[in-house]
Order: sequence, then C-alpha cells, then structure tokens
Amino acid sequence: MRAAVRGGRWTTTTHGLARGYVQASVAILPEKYAFDFLRFCQRNPKPCPLLEVTDPGDPEARMAAPGSDLPGHRLYRDGAFSEEVRSIHNLWCDDHVGVVLGCSLSFDEVLVEAGVRQCHLEQAGGRLAVYRTSIECVPAGVFHGPLVVAMRPIRKRDVVRAVELSARYPIAHGAPVHISDPREIGMENPAKVDWGRYPAPAEDEAPVYWACGVIPQATAMASGVPEMITHSAGHMFVTDPHLSTMAH
Amino acid sequence: MRAAVRGGRWTTTTHGLARGYVQASVAILPEKYAFDFLRFCQRNPKPCPLLEVTDPGDPEARMAAPGSDLPGHRLYRDGAFSEEVRSIHNLWCDDHVGVVLGCSLSFDEVLVEAGVRQCHLEQAGGRLAVYRTSIECVPAGVFHGPLVVAMRPIRKRDVVRAVELSARYPIAHGAPVHISDPREIGMENPAKVDWGRYPAPAEDEAPVYWACGVIPQATAMASGVPEMITHSAGHMFVTDPHLSTMAH
Repeated sequence: MRAAVRGGRWTTTTHGLARGYVQASVAILPEKYAFDFLRFCQRNPKPCPLLEVTDPGDPEARMAAPGSDLPGHRLYRDGAFSEEVRSIHNLWCDDHVGVVLGCSLSFDEVLVEAGVRQCHLEQAGGRLAVYRTSIECVPAGVFHGPLVVAMRPIRKRDVVRAVELSARYPIAHGAPVHISDPREIGMENPAKVDWGRYPAPAEDEAPVYWACGVIPQATAMASGVPEMITHSAGHMFVTDPHLSTMAH
Repeated sequence: MRAAVRGGRWTTTTHGLARGYVQASVAILPEKYAFDFLRFCQRNPKPCPLLEVTDPGDPEARMAAPGSDLPGHRLYRDGAFSEEVRSIHNLWCDDHVGVVLGCSLSFDEVLVEAGVRQCHLEQAGGRLAVYRTSIECVPAGVFHGPLVVAMRPIRKRDVVRAVELSARYPIAHGAPVHISDPREIGMENPAKVDWGRYPAPAEDEAPVYWACGVIPQATAMASGVPEMITHSAGHMFVTDPHLSTMAH
C-alpha cells in the first residue's frame, strides 16, 4: 500500500485500505510554529490525537509510518487555502516538522464490525457532515479556532455502544463530544454543513458528534500561519500500529 | 492546600494530601529546549504522561493547577544537580516553559482502595525502589536516556488486578512495563537501587515495575541541558482534575 503511494500508483483516498491499521492525517509546518501547535494538540486531545511528531527537517514518520507518503496534500498560505498538490517534494524545507494525528477512518470499521450501522459508509463517497461548533478549542500561541465535529447518524439503540466503543480509541478521536440536539453546540440548521454532506438521521437514529480531524485545516485558516501543509480529505497515512494495539 | 504551599506554610511532600486528585511533577526549561522535550514526552508516554504545557514565560499551570506552587524544587545545570530550592521566584525567566507530568501518587490510593496491598506505603516514608533499566527511551532532539522504573512488591494473587487498574490511568504512568524477573530489563541486583529504598518482595509477592516520574531528572542529567528545574522527590502539584475524570 505504502509502496504504491510512494511510487505514485495510488493517488486517491485511503478509505477501506489496510483495514484495522490506524490511519492518520498530517500537519506540516515550520519549526517556529511547531511548539505552539504541539501545545494546541496537547490541550485539545479529542480533535488532535498525537500519534507522532517528526524531528525538524525529517520528512519521514519513522515510528508510525516509515516509507510512507500521503496520496494527496493541501497547501495553506497566510491562513488561506492555496492549492491541492500530490507530491510535496519541492515544498519540503529543512525546518519543516510533521505532526501526525490519528483519524477516524480505521475506527469506522470497529463500529461496523460491532454491528453499529453507519449509513453514510453505505452511500457513495462515505462523506460525513462536518460542522464548526460554538465550542472554542483551548488556544495555544498563534493557534485557536472552533472545535470541528463530524456527525454520524447512529441508531438510537446503538448510541450507548457507540460511545463505549469509541471511548476505547482516543487515537481515533475517542468518545463523542455531543449527542442529539445540534443547537446546544451552535448548529441552528444541521442541513447547513461546513464541510461534507448532510445525511439526515432517520426516525430511529440520533445525530452523534465526534471531534473531527479537519481541525488542522481550520486552525491553519484561523491562525493565519504563513505556511501549513495538510493531507487532502480522506488521503491518509496508513500506519504500522494496528488499532487494537492502541485500544484502552 | 495550594494556598498553604503558595504561602510557605507547607514545605514538605504532598503524599496523601487531597486524596483522589491527580498529583503532578514538573520540568521547567528554556523554550529553546521545550519542543525537543515535548517530542520526548510524546514518544515516551508511560514515563512522561503530559498533563499540561504552559505558554512560554507563564509561571502558572493555568489549566491543571491554577494558584499552585511546588513545595520544593531541584535545580540542574549542564546535566548536573546543582541545588535544592524551595522557591524559584528568583530563577524564573521569561522564556521558561513548564511541562506538567502526571505522577503515581494519587494512583497509589486506587490500588489500596481496591484491596491491592502496597507494603511500602505502610512503612516510613513510603519510598519505592527506583532503577535505571536497560530499555532506552525513544530519543528526541537533545533528550535521551534509559527508561526509569519504580518497583512495587505486589501480592501474586493481585498482580492481574494491579495491571487492570493501573492501565485505566495513563496520566499516572498507566500499566506496568514489566513483571517479575528484573534481569530481563537490566537489573542484575535488585537490592542495588538507583534511587529510593529496596522493599524486598515477600514469598507471596512479585516485583512489578512501573515507568517512573524521575525521568525528567534522569534526562536532564543525560542530555546536559544548561538548565532544568524539576520538583523535589514527592513535592508535587495537587491539580484540579480528580483522577476518576481522567480514567480510561
């Protein structure tokens, strides 16, 4: 899988690949901002579960995903989206630090295997509804911004099980941050998403909100750092650790 | 409790105080080394469970322990112990960062309440046997050094329960790193401790080894950083979070 990405033979999303292994997003930024960003992650572990931090100038996630590239990146400059790029070889600098954050892609499998149905995975693209909430992340240095959540419609009879199961995997954002009424966390109209697509909960489903890995992009924009490179949506690292080895 | 420390009316160890609340050690170092040290903690979560990182120049652990001072500090210079000091007001610099790490003091209560006897707590001083092991911590920047462990003699019939219980509290070093034969992790003669005092396990007890919070001192010495201020042994922050709120 990694060789295919590095060799340019896999250039699309990693959803459903290498099932069971932790998938991870990345935020690459100049060392000057890395300490602020690490404090931001430490203060906001649900949206930003730290899996690895590379040494300055080292372009490889040596511990979690050696030999790995991302199949797609997004480049932000001065707080604005600049461009989508496949390779960052010509953008990498000696003072770059890569912050690798666990994501929910592998965890989705755990829910499904436990019989917790996730309708959005059965539909084209598997996209979730993603919102900026009225909850502020704890700021650190230049980094600040709203907590971003992803909503999964979960059958009401499965909600407790979904909380129990996700709580075991802090590396994949852990337990939900909110259940049910979206207005309590600042979304007046749940059909109006900030990213993704709205899968309206059915009669027997409740909306359940988990912290979302789009937070690096959101903070890059909010903080206006001169440069940040992130993964493209769904274009993740497939890492060495199996999710089960990181369960609590 | 905090007011008593800040007012200079409590100047000794915090063992047994404010039972149930997370107690924490601290490593204060110049911002220049803080990003290296944070990566070190991220890579070695068992010995270095991050509870809070202060903004550069801010002498207060605002999130975990506002209004708090330590009742005692140790000062290291160029990798060597320099002196024990009660107050660090005259040592604090604008570029200092405080890294607050969870410790095992509060967790000891959990074991005792669950009926897991800890003989060393019943003896004067409650001191443990602390060893440098042959296991190397994952290095980061200037920081490196051996994993340091604390040994508790645990009744053999309680060992599984002790593992289960401690695994729930990663903020207090989590599950043990080793059980039984000390030679497997580099200690030929367990009576020869590096710190503390050796409580020889009785016939019905096994030695169980947990990662130990003396690691900031050990890395300060191994790395030779020009300056690091740590807590004095047993002189901890008493923090706001109750241990139960940080359980997994």
